[in-house]
Amino acid sequence: MTETPRPSYAAAGVDIDAAERLVSRIAELAKSARRPEVLADVGPFAGLFRLGAYREPVLVASTDSVGTKVKLASLLGRYDTVGHDLVNHCVNDILTAGAEPLFFLDYIGNCGLSDDAKADLVRGCVEACREAGCALLGGETADMPGTYAEGDFDLAGFIVGVVERDAVIDGSRIRAGDVLLALPSRGLHTNGYSLVRKVFGVGLDRDAGAERAVLNSNFPGLEGSLGDALLAPHRCYLPDLRPLLQPPTPALSAAEGSNLQPLTSNLQPPIRGIAHITGGGIPGNVPRILPAGLGVHIDRSAWRVPALFRLIQEHGGIDEEEMFRTFNMGVGIVLAVAPADAAGVQSQLPEARKIGEVVKGNGVEWDT
Amino acid sequence: MTETPRPSYAAAGVDIDAAERLVSRIAELAKSARRPEVLADVGPFAGLFRLGAYREPVLVASTDSVGTKVKLASLLGRYDTVGHDLVNHCVNDILTAGAEPLFFLDYIGNCGLSDDAKADLVRGCVEACREAGCALLGGETADMPGTYAEGDFDLAGFIVGVVERDAVIDGSRIRAGDVLLALPSRGLHTNGYSLVRKVFGVGLDRDAGAERAVLNSNFPGLEGSLGDALLAPHRCYLPDLRPLLQPPTPALSAAEGSNLQPLTSNLQPPIRGIAHITGGGIPGNVPRILPAGLGVHIDRSAWRVPALFRLIQEHGGIDEEEMFRTFNMGVGIVLAVAPADAAGVQSQLPEARKIGEVVKGNGVEWDT
Repeated sequence: MTETPRPSYAAAGVDIDAAERLVSRIAELAKSARRPEVLADVGPFAGLFRLGAYREPVLVASTDSVGTKVKLASLLGRYDTVGHDLVNHCVNDILTAGAEPLFFLDYIGNCGLSDDAKADLVRGCVEACREAGCALLGGETADMPGTYAEGDFDLAGFIVGVVERDAVIDGSRIRAGDVLLALPSRGLHTNGYSLVRKVFGVGLDRDAGAERAVLNSNFPGLEGSLGDALLAPHRCYLPDLRPLLQPPTPALSAAEGSNLQPLTSNLQPPIRGIAHITGGGIPGNVPRILPAGLGVHIDRSAWRVPALFRLIQEHGGIDEEEMFRTFNMGVGIVLAVAPADAAGVQSQLPEARKIGEVVKGNGVEWDT
Repeated sequence: MTETPRPSYAAAGVDIDAAERLVSRIAELAKSARRPEVLADVGPFAGLFRLGAYREPVLVASTDSVGTKVKLASLLGRYDTVGHDLVNHCVNDILTAGAEPLFFLDYIGNCGLSDDAKADLVRGCVEACREAGCALLGGETADMPGTYAEGDFDLAGFIVGVVERDAVIDGSRIRAGDVLLALPSRGLHTNGYSLVRKVFGVGLDRDAGAERAVLNSNFPGLEGSLGDALLAPHRCYLPDLRPLLQPPTPALSAAEGSNLQPLTSNLQPPIRGIAHITGGGIPGNVPRILPAGLGVHIDRSAWRVPALFRLIQEHGGIDEEEMFRTFNMGVGIVLAVAPADAAGVQSQLPEARKIGEVVKGNGVEWDT
C-alpha cells in the first residue's frame, strides 16, 4: 500500500530546506573572497559594502553571462571553470572604464543541478573574485523546473567597481593616429559557443556519449582535447592593465579644505580607450569606444590567429568575415594609446602587439 | 536549385545585427529611468554612476529573479509586468538594510523571444525603476538556444543602493517585546510558482490552449481571472517605508572639519528590523533578521489570508504549514519596532497591522 504524498513545494521541484543548506555552504565559500569593506556578505536579503575614501567616486557596473559555454561545461561535468569565465568577463567590462572591481554577485538559474555542481559554479566565482581582489558579496540560486531542462543551467553575474571621476577612461581622448595595441585572448572566452556547438555537433542535447567523445578528441594544433580548448577560461586583464591606470589618489581629508586641486589632474594616463573583444568580435567592439568621425585600420597579418579558430573555421566551412565578427580571433582586449606612449606601454606589457591605428572615418578597415 | 547557406552565427540562433538593433531600442527605453548621477548608461561595456556626497556610504547590493512566474507570463503573452516584479523584489531586498536604490541592471536569458517581448520585459523594469527613483544602468540579453526551450526565458536583476553607515538597519537593535508589524502583499509576489503551476496544471508546457483557459477562468473570491491574480506584480514598499527611515544627512563640507559629529547620531530610527517575505514565507524570513536567542510569536488570526491563497490550498489539498512556508500568505514585509514606537509607525502606515512580537527563544511560535 502506498501513501500519496500531499503536494508540497519540494515535490514540485523546489526544496527550501536543501536550498538553505546550499546557502550556508556557499556563504562559507564566499568568506574566502571577502574584503575589509564587506559589512555583511551573503546577508539575509542583501550584501553590504562600505565604500572607502574617494574624492569623486564613480561606480561602474556591468552584467553578463557565460552564454552557451555552460552547455559544454554540463556535458563534461566540469562546473568549476565557468565561474572564472563569468567573473573575468565582468572584471574586463568595467576595466574598460578604468575601474577597479569592488564586489560581484552571481545568479544561477537551473533545473536539477546537484548541490555539488552549484557549489563548484560558485567556487569558480570565488576563486576568480579572489584573484581580482573583488568581494563575492551575494548571489541567488533559482530552481526553475520547466524553464530549464533537467540538468541545464544559466550563470549570470553582476559587478560593481569604482574609479575616480577624473580617471574615467571613456575613449573621448582618442585621436586619429592613436596606436591600437592588442593583448591575446585565451581561447574563445565567452562568445561564439552557439556556432561552435553546431560546427562540432556538441552540447546539442542529442547523444551525450557521442558528443562527449568529440570533446575528448585531440585535433591537430590543439594542446589537450577539444573540450579543454573550448572550456579554457576567459582571461582577466586587470593584472596587466592595473599598473597603467591612474592610481587612486588619496581622498582629501576634510582639514585640507575643498579648494585644493588633486595633484594628478594634469597627468593623463597613457591608455585612452579600452575595448573588450566580446560578442561581435573586433568589428563589433573596437568602434564602440571611438569618438564620432573616427574608425580603425586593422592589420590582420599583425598577429597569428590561434589554431582553435582555424580549426573551427575549417570544420564549419565558415567565411573569414563571419569568423571575425563572431569570435575574438586571438585578441582579448584592444587598447588605444597616443603614438608617443605606445613604446612605453609595450615595455610594460610585453605581450601587447600593435595591430592597427585609429583613422578618420568610421567602422573597421581591414588590411589583410 | 537551392543554395546551402554557409554556416553563420545568425543561423546558429544568435543574430548579432538584430541584437544591436535591440540594444538601441533598449537604450532609448532606459533613458526614461535615468538619474542625474548617470554618466553613461547602457554604455559600451559598463554603466557609470557618480556617487553623491555621503559621510560614510555603505553600498547595498542584491540579485534576484522572478522565478517560474515567467512561465505564466509567457503562456499569457504578457511580458510587461514581470519587470515590475523583478525591480520591486530587488528594491525591497535592499530596503531591508535601510538603503535607497541607486541603480539596477537586468539580465534576460532566452531562446527565440521576440524583440517586442524583450522590449516589454525591459519596459516593465524601466517603469518600476522610475517609480522607485532608481536608474536602469545597464543590462544584458543572452540568446541561448539549447539552454532555454523555444520561447522560454529567465529574468534576473541586480540592484545597488546606498545608506549612511549609522543608518544601516541590521536587526541588531531588536529586543524581546518588540512589536511585529506587517504590510500586506499583492498576491504571491515572486514565490511559490512552481507549486502553483502544479496545483492548477498551468505553465507546464503541455497543452497551451487548455492551460490558458484555466488562467482565463474566474474563481470565487478573485477579482479578475486566475491569470490576473497570479501575475499581479510584486509590491514595492519603498514609498511606504522611506519616510520612516533615517533621512540621509548632508555630507559635511570640508570646511566644517572632520571632528564634527553628525547631528542625528543619537536619533534612532523607529524601525529596528525589516524582513522581506520571499521564498520560505514568514518562518523562512522573519527569524533571519533576529539577534541570536530571539524568536517570534505570530498570531495567524491577526490578519485575513487573501482568497487566492485559500484557493490554491483547497485546489491542491495543501497542508496549512506547507502553505505558510511556501507563500507569503498575504504578508509582504514585516517590521520590528520598539513597543513605544508601534503606534507612531502605525499612524504613518495605516495598512500596517500588528501580527506578533519578538520573544526569547528561536524560530516561529504560531498562535492560531
